[in-house]
Amino acid sequence: MKQYLKMDEWNIIEEGFDEDNNEVSEGIFSIGNGYMGQRANFEEIYSGKSLKGNYMAGVYYPDKTRVGWWKNGYPEYFAKVLNSTNWIGIDISIDGEILDLAKCEVKDFVRTLNMKEGYLSRSFVAKLPSGKQVKVDAKRFVSITLKEIGAIKYSITPVNFEGELSILSYLDGDVKNEDSNYDEKFWDEVSKQCDEDGSSLIIKTKKLDFHVCSAMKLDIVKDGKKVDYNHVFIKAEKYVGNSVTLTVKQNEEIVMYKYVCNVTSRDYEIEELLEVCNKNLEKACLKGFETLLKDQAHAWGEKWKQSDIVIEGDVSAQQAIRFNIFQLNQTYTGEDDRLNIGPKGFTGEKYGGGTYWDTEAYCIPFYLSTADTSISRNLLIYRYKQLGKAKENARKLGFTKGALYPMVTMNGEECHNEWEITFEEIHRNGAIAHGIYNYVNYTGDKSYLGQYGLEVLVEISRFWEERVSFAPSKGKYVMLGVTGPNEYENNSNNNWYTNRIACWTLEYTSKVIDYLKNNEDQRYLELAQILGLKEEEISKWQDIIKNMYYPVDAELGIFLQQDGYMDKEQILVKDLDPKHLPLNQKWSWDRILRSCFIKQADVLQGLYFLQDEYDLDTIRRNFEFYEPRTVHESSLSPCVHSILASKLGNQEKAYEMYLRTARLDLDNYNDDTKDGCHITSMAGSWMSIVEGFGGMRVEDGKLILNPFIPEKWGSFSFKIMFRGNLLKVNIKKHKVIITSENKKLITLSVNGKDYTTENEIEVLS
Amino acid sequence: MKQYLKMDEWNIIEEGFDEDNNEVSEGIFSIGNGYMGQRANFEEIYSGKSLKGNYMAGVYYPDKTRVGWWKNGYPEYFAKVLNSTNWIGIDISIDGEILDLAKCEVKDFVRTLNMKEGYLSRSFVAKLPSGKQVKVDAKRFVSITLKEIGAIKYSITPVNFEGELSILSYLDGDVKNEDSNYDEKFWDEVSKQCDEDGSSLIIKTKKLDFHVCSAMKLDIVKDGKKVDYNHVFIKAEKYVGNSVTLTVKQNEEIVMYKYVCNVTSRDYEIEELLEVCNKNLEKACLKGFETLLKDQAHAWGEKWKQSDIVIEGDVSAQQAIRFNIFQLNQTYTGEDDRLNIGPKGFTGEKYGGGTYWDTEAYCIPFYLSTADTSISRNLLIYRYKQLGKAKENARKLGFTKGALYPMVTMNGEECHNEWEITFEEIHRNGAIAHGIYNYVNYTGDKSYLGQYGLEVLVEISRFWEERVSFAPSKGKYVMLGVTGPNEYENNSNNNWYTNRIACWTLEYTSKVIDYLKNNEDQRYLELAQILGLKEEEISKWQDIIKNMYYPVDAELGIFLQQDGYMDKEQILVKDLDPKHLPLNQKWSWDRILRSCFIKQADVLQGLYFLQDEYDLDTIRRNFEFYEPRTVHESSLSPCVHSILASKLGNQEKAYEMYLRTARLDLDNYNDDTKDGCHITSMAGSWMSIVEGFGGMRVEDGKLILNPFIPEKWGSFSFKIMFRGNLLKVNIKKHKVIITSENKKLITLSVNGKDYTTENEIEVLS
Repeated sequence: MKQYLKMDEWNIIEEGFDEDNNEVSEGIFSIGNGYMGQRANFEEIYSGKSLKGNYMAGVYYPDKTRVGWWKNGYPEYFAKVLNSTNWIGIDISIDGEILDLAKCEVKDFVRTLNMKEGYLSRSFVAKLPSGKQVKVDAKRFVSITLKEIGAIKYSITPVNFEGELSILSYLDGDVKNEDSNYDEKFWDEVSKQCDEDGSSLIIKTKKLDFHVCSAMKLDIVKDGKKVDYNHVFIKAEKYVGNSVTLTVKQNEEIVMYKYVCNVTSRDYEIEELLEVCNKNLEKACLKGFETLLKDQAHAWGEKWKQSDIVIEGDVSAQQAIRFNIFQLNQTYTGEDDRLNIGPKGFTGEKYGGGTYWDTEAYCIPFYLSTADTSISRNLLIYRYKQLGKAKENARKLGFTKGALYPMVTMNGEECHNEWEITFEEIHRNGAIAHGIYNYVNYTGDKSYLGQYGLEVLVEISRFWEERVSFAPSKGKYVMLGVTGPNEYENNSNNNWYTNRIACWTLEYTSKVIDYLKNNEDQRYLELAQILGLKEEEISKWQDIIKNMYYPVDAELGIFLQQDGYMDKEQILVKDLDPKHLPLNQKWSWDRILRSCFIKQADVLQGLYFLQDEYDLDTIRRNFEFYEPRTVHESSLSPCVHSILASKLGNQEKAYEMYLRTARLDLDNYNDDTKDGCHITSMAGSWMSIVEGFGGMRVEDGKLILNPFIPEKWGSFSFKIMFRGNLLKVNIKKHKVIITSENKKLITLSVNGKDYTTENEIEVLS
Repeated sequence: MKQYLKMDEWNIIEEGFDEDNNEVSEGIFSIGNGYMGQRANFEEIYSGKSLKGNYMAGVYYPDKTRVGWWKNGYPEYFAKVLNSTNWIGIDISIDGEILDLAKCEVKDFVRTLNMKEGYLSRSFVAKLPSGKQVKVDAKRFVSITLKEIGAIKYSITPVNFEGELSILSYLDGDVKNEDSNYDEKFWDEVSKQCDEDGSSLIIKTKKLDFHVCSAMKLDIVKDGKKVDYNHVFIKAEKYVGNSVTLTVKQNEEIVMYKYVCNVTSRDYEIEELLEVCNKNLEKACLKGFETLLKDQAHAWGEKWKQSDIVIEGDVSAQQAIRFNIFQLNQTYTGEDDRLNIGPKGFTGEKYGGGTYWDTEAYCIPFYLSTADTSISRNLLIYRYKQLGKAKENARKLGFTKGALYPMVTMNGEECHNEWEITFEEIHRNGAIAHGIYNYVNYTGDKSYLGQYGLEVLVEISRFWEERVSFAPSKGKYVMLGVTGPNEYENNSNNNWYTNRIACWTLEYTSKVIDYLKNNEDQRYLELAQILGLKEEEISKWQDIIKNMYYPVDAELGIFLQQDGYMDKEQILVKDLDPKHLPLNQKWSWDRILRSCFIKQADVLQGLYFLQDEYDLDTIRRNFEFYEPRTVHESSLSPCVHSILASKLGNQEKAYEMYLRTARLDLDNYNDDTKDGCHITSMAGSWMSIVEGFGGMRVEDGKLILNPFIPEKWGSFSFKIMFRGNLLKVNIKKHKVIITSENKKLITLSVNGKDYTTENEIEVLS
């Protein structure tokens, strides 16, 4: 944990340059627009520690799986989000001396992520080894109105000299992934142009043939006027650059505008890439940097209108939640139904940019409430489209029926290769089913069930049916050899959460079947035919539901995380010398495995998902048992605890866990932000406020709020979209005001009482 | 499974050349002398499938650990037995055309491993693409009288032509390991010589600085006379070669003798390597090939006198057991106490040549009975010397005391990196303790206990003490998160075998402490001081012994392999469609894990080790339960089953399991012999006959025999060394004859009755 960023309600601010923070900042200050994104690398060359990252959504590489000891069933490849053409590059030299912050004395360094308007800026004065000082102001963004466009304003002012200033602006496709095996590079050059007519570069991936075309245009402005200059054109392997050399005077500001367009073969025919790219670039240049930036600010304003959370009296909490919402909106916009949400978004390579169960368990609730319904629907359809591959995956592992969705995927194929995760962390299948429930429950869009939902539910149910086995010794169905959400247990038997979510899937699938039988009988018959659905299997599911074994500790009145959990030595985290934390850095794996310590909510994850099924006392007993044993070494853990603590009235714990989830990256809690931000858990931060402090849930189509306000806060408000209504929920110390921002009639329940309005409700509390 | 070798009592014979069998044959026909060894690669160049292997015992490489996902506690390196200088190379060309069996028509091919005399021979007629036919007879061995010497006789006869014959004889250090990461080569050249004064090459490993010096001398003989010839000297990177070109006539035999000496920096100072090497080579050349070979045959004769097993009426069984004994004696001679027995010996790279628990569990019984006591004592001392590293290893994994011996090691450090094995397969510690018991019980050498044994026993006991935990839920000690001998279960709780061998260690250590207190009180006090041994810990051990939890199925009257084993679907191997076998090639890992199928004896391994503690009915119930669930996909499994089946009077099963262990490689049972032979399990084949069919055991210092004879056999006999006696045990259909070959007085028990003799006992049965 390290706090070096300045507190501010709308900005993330780094003041002063510390090389040791650079990689962390590169992650935190990342910018993106759902279509492309990048880490906050410097424009100019930097020889210090840096993880370079420019990413195009959906462009990945199936790198050969690397493993010490092969196990049957491992996937052939591990997909990697691709570091793509570096299009921000602007190298500066002054009288031949290179501007490289690693080799300069850096003064007045400020890096800012302006979340309100959606841009990254940086300014500093660098003293070069020669003693020459240069002032730089850089600003850049990836447009959310013209998604293929990125723009940079890079201004240079000689502070104490006059001389020759060279500016080399380039597109560099000769880049690599840090996580590539054998240091292999993944790109080949297709073509390039670099002359009077323009600069562009097309590269393609060595496998899968993704083409990325980038084109750039440059303007140089002095005294508010465009300067005509002599280009020097530079071409190299997978590289094009334009170099300009100007004689500059002391205190004379030179501004370079760099406009770039990036298009890919995911959206266009290969032959038209260059033409489209140049056309879009032309359009952007016509607008010019300042207009583009104004559009950007306006568009971000619209986003904030739908999704902002305002907290009074707690800058740290305010900054954190805006950062979380901002990064989520930068990562995924829902416009492209082939895409999903990688755990690191555009902020790093880790986890390969693949899709995890995080999407259903954490992100869907966020997008349900803060964006158009079509966005979360697209996330569900993403899985629907991959059903065939999920069935193949189950076959590969020896199942004769059903679908097992992969732990990590780009295109539906599994691409993770730890047996205890890949093969055993099958609860993900349940989360995917639960995502469907969540969507339908929130939106009321039951049409989804007949259209797409049932097929997925039936195939997942079939998987569970085959995955459980009947243990005559217990007279019950059991599920052996699984890893639950708590990955600090592997290959355990009867993980309560997995058993429960499996049966819940069978229950929900059965309900959906009944619903369709009764309401869409024609479609149901059609689906039954397509799926070869038989009454016997439905009744087999009922048998499993009735006779599933659940481990419990009757005396404590709790569900047991898995068989034998109480055989472990029971120690609480608070009684552990802090020098042992984080366990995953301090302890050997076997020690972690046989300890009682929990990486992330497991039983509690189930109680969160299915909270309507359990009374408060049950939730409390389990919370009070498991929370003190949980080390939260997964980013996905604190939010679930925060929400349940809110529900249980434990406001202090709820607030503590909120800060932990919301400031996870800003304060680098787990010392891993240099790899990138924890994007998917940011949705959990949002949930902690809206579902936790706000007590929001939907029951039988009705929106329910049971809010409280953390002691430290003066007030807070959040926006939610609910069935066509855009609601602002404003919670003050003794009052809750709910405003329908689009003046639509709504009935909702606040603190157990129903209210109907098309304007504003004020509830004293 | 594939049978292509000819049955013969003393030889392994391959007739006819089939490229597809070559790598398997390279493993099976391997030769070695404990000091060095090699796969049966061809002398001449061969472009077909081949795994090159020349190994110098104890020369290894700490290759960087390769792993997909790093876990805390993994070792930094995975040790690899090194493919070293290829010293057998003799390339042949005829009028410029290269002799390469992959490109010739091969006739009359015969490869023979003469086990009686200890050499490898090969003969064939090759028709080259040009139509020229050449007859080759090659014979080679690594000397067991001059262990640094290898010698080759390579004879070439033109069948249907006359022309220019070139013979290029070389030493090539530019070799690689197939299992190297990133195709890296592990050797650097130090120096070389190749001129009138001789040919030699010194190379050294890139890490650890092992130097290997090889020197060669050549003689060419025609018509029984040495030929003077013109050398061409060839030098290249890590390579020296002598080329000779002769004009040859049809049917004129040219014989090349190649003598090589290999010495390493393990035995000599680096500066003296070359001198020693040349001196030894000189000595060998003076003797000449035929004399060296005669010495070899004689020395092997002596080995056979001590260790031969003769089977009448079953060539297949006879050939197999001799092959097993031969390979064991080729692998380990016990002369160098820094060495141990790699699972593949000198026959392949797999398993990195490291030391496993195989040594204690399987090999020590063999060497105890077939070699001087000092040999098995050296194997124990090997572990004693590594006690410090085993303690470090325990510390690395977070234990505050005790020693955990590594799963795989070269020098005492762990070098395996699968968490479920490295961290969890801790029963190995028990086998190492049991090895001490076994040695003392067999030899009566109690001096070992005070000298070395107790220190190891106490540190292992301390490990067990810390590794168990008390489960209030059970009121018992439990052991969580282990992998038993059956590696088809991982991270299981209360593996019966591990719990038992842990408690057995505590029991035995306590007994040894009592013995020393009573018999070597001074040494005991000294040891107690060195070890900081306290009465409290000894009484803590008693508490653990008394209160250890053992999973059982009371109804079936069996020990349960681990908690929850009976929750698995119970299927027998015989009811499994054979298309599923071997499981490790056909099933995904998760499917294997949650099935009831057993890779190798687990509970039965414990009942074998501790058979004196369990009555026959208990052994029978467990055998009858577990054997039908065991797939024997570990080479170490069938022998234990064979021995127990013998004990239970199930002769048919005992014989079936004997063939499975003894012919495992010859018949390539598990389709993996191309990687090399299963050396350590070969000791299990020997045990199957001596301890199984022969019913040999030692109780309270007395040798006990309870033999039976497999139906198919006319008679069988084996030799055992027992406390200074060399006994021949000859079992005929209705008679057992025991002869003291060195005429020493012995009292032993046969079929429950005691006999004393210094000559011969005949017992009717």
